Amino acid sequence: MIQVIEIEWSQTEKQIARQAFDKAYDREIRALIKEVQQQASQITELENLWLLHDFLSARRHEIDGKYDYRYSSLIFVFALLIKEGWLHKDELEGLNPDKRAKVAALSRM
Amino acid sequence: MIQVIEIEWSQTEKQIARQAFDKAYDREIRALIKEVQQQASQITELENLWLLHDFLSARRHEIDGKYDYRYSSLIFVFALLIKEGWLHKDELEGLNPDKRAKVAALSRM
Repeated sequence: MIQVIEIEWSQTEKQIARQAFDKAYDREIRALIKEVQQQASQITELENLWLLHDFLSARRHEIDGKYDYRYSSLIFVFALLIKEGWLHKDELEGLNPDKRAKVAALSRM
Repeated sequence: MIQVIEIEWSQTEKQIARQAFDKAYDREIRALIKEVQQQASQITELENLWLLHDFLSARRHEIDGKYDYRYSSLIFVFALLIKEGWLHKDELEGLNPDKRAKVAALSRM
């Protein structure tokens, strides 16, 4: 397993990480808002309201778990966000090459 | 306290009760769908998505608790639905006068 738990983050890296993290979150939530708006606008059957609620509950749970801003988790978080398309690897420019290589390797798994 | 627990329901009354119950549920959910559609269409801030989810969770919980189709509960359920405007007392026509009087009395409390 790739050793990432004890990585040090410089002040500059923390700023870059925070910006990248927030940018990905913003993108994912905005996409979700669009999807919810579309689903809501198409509800005609009563039970579809509860399906929309179930959908939102599941997505919220998943998103809450995924956006874990602990320095011991960030490498994994960034790898997943890149894999899912919410973050581009270029947006981690300024992190040290070792961190970026680990993120890139994990994002291909 | 008004004694309603052991009331007997005839087959005709059961049909009338079921129709009234379903009609009120239909109205309340359709109103909620409209409100959710309107709230969803107005989301611009990220956190408002989770406020919409909280709102739906609370309404679902309340509605699940309220629409309790047990014959021991129906008098109370109908009284509340009339009080809230989801049912009109005329829609209980065909239930025996004693039941209707109890519903009417409770709905004014």
